[in-house]
Parts: sequence; structure tokens; C-alpha cells
Amino acid sequence: MGRVTERRRVLRIRDGEPSTRPDTLVAEEPMEIRLDGRPLAITMRTPGDDFALAAGFLVSEGVVSRASDVAAIVYCAGATQDGRNTYNVVDVRLAPGVPLPDITLERNVYTTSSCGLCGKASLDAVRTTAAWPLADTPPVRVTPDLLALLPDRLRAAQRVFDRTGGLHAAGLFSPEGELLDLREDVGRHNAVDKVVGRALRSGGLPLSRSVLLVSGRASFELAQKAVMAGIPVLASVSAPSSLAVDLAAETGLTLVGFLRGGSMNVYAGEGRLDLRAGAGAGT
Amino acid sequence: MGRVTERRRVLRIRDGEPSTRPDTLVAEEPMEIRLDGRPLAITMRTPGDDFALAAGFLVSEGVVSRASDVAAIVYCAGATQDGRNTYNVVDVRLAPGVPLPDITLERNVYTTSSCGLCGKASLDAVRTTAAWPLADTPPVRVTPDLLALLPDRLRAAQRVFDRTGGLHAAGLFSPEGELLDLREDVGRHNAVDKVVGRALRSGGLPLSRSVLLVSGRASFELAQKAVMAGIPVLASVSAPSSLAVDLAAETGLTLVGFLRGGSMNVYAGEGRLDLRAGAGAGT
Repeated sequence: MGRVTERRRVLRIRDGEPSTRPDTLVAEEPMEIRLDGRPLAITMRTPGDDFALAAGFLVSEGVVSRASDVAAIVYCAGATQDGRNTYNVVDVRLAPGVPLPDITLERNVYTTSSCGLCGKASLDAVRTTAAWPLADTPPVRVTPDLLALLPDRLRAAQRVFDRTGGLHAAGLFSPEGELLDLREDVGRHNAVDKVVGRALRSGGLPLSRSVLLVSGRASFELAQKAVMAGIPVLASVSAPSSLAVDLAAETGLTLVGFLRGGSMNVYAGEGRLDLRAGAGAGT
Repeated sequence: MGRVTERRRVLRIRDGEPSTRPDTLVAEEPMEIRLDGRPLAITMRTPGDDFALAAGFLVSEGVVSRASDVAAIVYCAGATQDGRNTYNVVDVRLAPGVPLPDITLERNVYTTSSCGLCGKASLDAVRTTAAWPLADTPPVRVTPDLLALLPDRLRAAQRVFDRTGGLHAAGLFSPEGELLDLREDVGRHNAVDKVVGRALRSGGLPLSRSVLLVSGRASFELAQKAVMAGIPVLASVSAPSSLAVDLAAETGLTLVGFLRGGSMNVYAGEGRLDLRAGAGAGT
């Protein structure tokens, strides 16, 4: 866990005046995810919570949905020519009876639910493969007042961002606004996978009573990850993409964007917003 | 090109007051890149400049480096079961004699220079495969005063961002601060690939007399793309990652971060910064 940040010397220029000083950077390293020994994906990530990242990635891809689906997660030694363990290769071993995903070896891309050839096919695939359709989850309601509090709570809890300015955060909140988990990573999708993976490993899926807040923008990929984990509300401080909105509308995900101060845009799933004047933190 | 943005209805909440209105979103669609008919990669991108995106991706991966390396780029019809052309599958046909990259079919990940198993191996691979080592390029010098002007120039030229808030931008500038090209995309890496791909197709590589400015953060991937295109100066308005700094130091790339107002941090390649007091726009 000592690799979340790294120190480098930097030439700092302020109004034309140069000075040299040490600076703290967010660590970025590639991580290969293997499934029963077979390479599946490589992601550039911030080291830490690597097993959760691998597990959460597999939830997003529809490969696993319960802690018992995973027999073991290990670092692979001997991943380099000199046999050294780089701690950058993680193998997830599935429990007996859990089917391997259909990875067509003739295609060297891993075509999954997230990567259809047209947007419509992708939407259909996510909707049909989610283990916990959002329409079936117990009703969760939140007020705009409560949502407005979450970005400040996320920032207050972010430990690394202030030092590096380079990390994205994913915060999981209860419908009452309590911070349940926070993960940071150089990649937004990794931060979300880490949150979801930790929930899987502790038996916490589906996350049907939660609000996921992400820094930055809400892409299709992030909406997909929320849906696959059974998270009913995804909020972002910035803009969503068209495909993220389409996916939210098709799956019943509540998608909130531009959550800033008392303002927000609700792009789908308005039914979970409690809009009564002066409504308190609802459930 | 009509798909760069899409319109959706949105529930807007301002200080508890809801209203419904149309909103403009950045379009996001998956695009599959094929090489001589073989699937190579899928990226979620904003439609537009698709052929440049495919070409630039192949420059980043070290597959092509000159316009003549590419025989043709076409959209694949029949990519869906009903034979419809989704304009989301692009095939790049290499010119005779251009070697196909080593895509090992036994591995279903496309392991390239960008995706070594440890950071050090990745750095080595990029340094050794770049067609135009930055150390060999003609000297380019820029002043902090000039760099400080670029973010405003980029924002002024961004056409879509103001409407959606969801697009990343990559701006290519001359050492004198003239905007040479600007591409926007839901993904930063795609915006850079589009800039590089357009340069390739117009015979403009290597981009040895240019400064690349990206919105958001400077990851390893973006630094790699700059190096592979022969761009000597990469500037970002936000933080770089550790691996981006390491790559810049190893390859001779000038890496500037936190470029805001008159302030900036120079993480590598300080030799291209003209720090004489009151120095004008240098070359």
C-alpha cells in the first residue's frame, strides 16, 4: 500500500519565477487481470485494493455476483522474465461450477456486455445480464437536499486527492447520506470497481440501498458498473454521456449529473427523487 | 457528424425547484478498430473523425508512422446481424509490406507497448519503439508566458464543451502558440488519437514542432501517445501520474502539469523551457 503516491522533483514556475521542490504524484501502474490463469484485461490503475479491483471488474462484466463465486484471488509470481513478482498481475480463480465467460479466442478483443458493436446492442446486453434488475429492488428515495450534501462529504473524506490532485474518487453512500466506502484511483472506472469488489468480497452485493457518487463525468461504463452492482442511484459532479443516459433510462437507474451546490440535473429514474418541498432525508 | 451531441429531456433542480427542459449531451458510442479485418480494440468514443481516431490509435501502438503505411480506412457494413452499417466498426488496411503487429491469439488481451506487465517494461518498450526519438528532434523552446496563454486559447476554440460540459479536448499548438488543431471526445485518449491521426493522414508526422495541451490529467497513456507522435511538449491543466513523469524523463518529453494562469509545474524535459526573465515566445 506504499505505492498509492510517489515523490518526484518538480520545477515549479509561479509568475515566471522558477523553483525546484519535491512533489507528490499519484502512482499509476498497469495491472493484468487473469481469470483462472487466462489473461482477460489490463488496466492502468493506482496500486492498492488490487483484489477488490479484479473482483469488481468481474462483477461489471457479469462473470461473478456473489462472494462464493470466487474461490481465490492471488498475485502471480513469475510474471516477469526474471521470475520477480511485480504485484501487477492478479489471477481470479472461480469457484467450481461458475461458468467462464465466453471469450472467443479467434477475436483478440474481449467483447463483453460493455462493448457491443452498436450502442443499442450494448444497452440490451447490460439490461439482460444484470443479476439484480433495478426494477426489482426495494424502493429507495432521496431528496435533492441530501444529494447536495454528498460532494462535500466525498471531498472531505478523500485522503490522497489534496496531495496529488490526480485521483478520481468513487464514494458509496447510504440513502441517509452516510459514507459507506470511498476508493480512489487514477481511473474513475477502477475506483468504482474497487468499491464494488469490496462489497462483493464482504457479501454486500447487491448494493440496492446505496447512492454512488463519482468525481468527474458519468460515462456509459460507469453507469454499467452501477447497474451490474445493483446500485439504484448514480450521481456525478459533471456531465453524463448520451449512452449513459440511455442505459439509465432502459435499466431504471437514477442518474444525476452536474451535482453542484443545490443544483443538479436528473437524467433518468426521477421516481427516486423526493421532490416534496422541504422533504427531509428520505428512504 | 450529426452525432457529436444528442438531445434529451432532463429534470433540472435549482435550490429545490424542479423544472423540465431539453438538454444537450455529448454523444458516446462504441467503436471497434479492425486491422486488415481482424478486431484489434474497442473504444468508447464521440462519433466524428473516426478514421483519424483509428489511424492515431495505430500510431500510438507503433503499427504505422507515415500516411503511406495505410492503404485504406473504411467503415464495415454488415457489422450487425441485420447487415446494417452502424458506422461503429472501422477497418484499417495496411499498405503492402507494413508488418502486422504481433497479436498473440492465445492471449485475448492485446498486449502492446502501452500495456507491459510492469511499469518499467512499458517505459522501455515505448522508448525503443518510438519512430522519432525526441532526443533527435530539432530543438524547440517555449516560454512560461507562452504556455500560460494556451489553456484560454483552447477553451475559446472548444465548440462543443460549452453546450455539454462533457467533452475532453486535445489542442495542438505551434511553439509560437498558434492553434494548429483541436479535437474533442468523451475520452481524452481519443481526442489525442484524433489529433495524431489527422496529422498522420495529412503527412504531418512527426509533430516535432508542436505543443500538445490536454484537458484533465496527464496519464501514462497520453504521454505515450505524445512520444509516439514525436510531440516534444505535453501540457496539462491538471496532475500527471507517476508513470507519465517516468516516461517523460526516459524519453525526453517535456511534461508540464497544473498549467493555470501564470503557474505551472514542469516534471521533465525542463531544457525546452526558456526561463530567462522577460523572454518572449521562443522557438
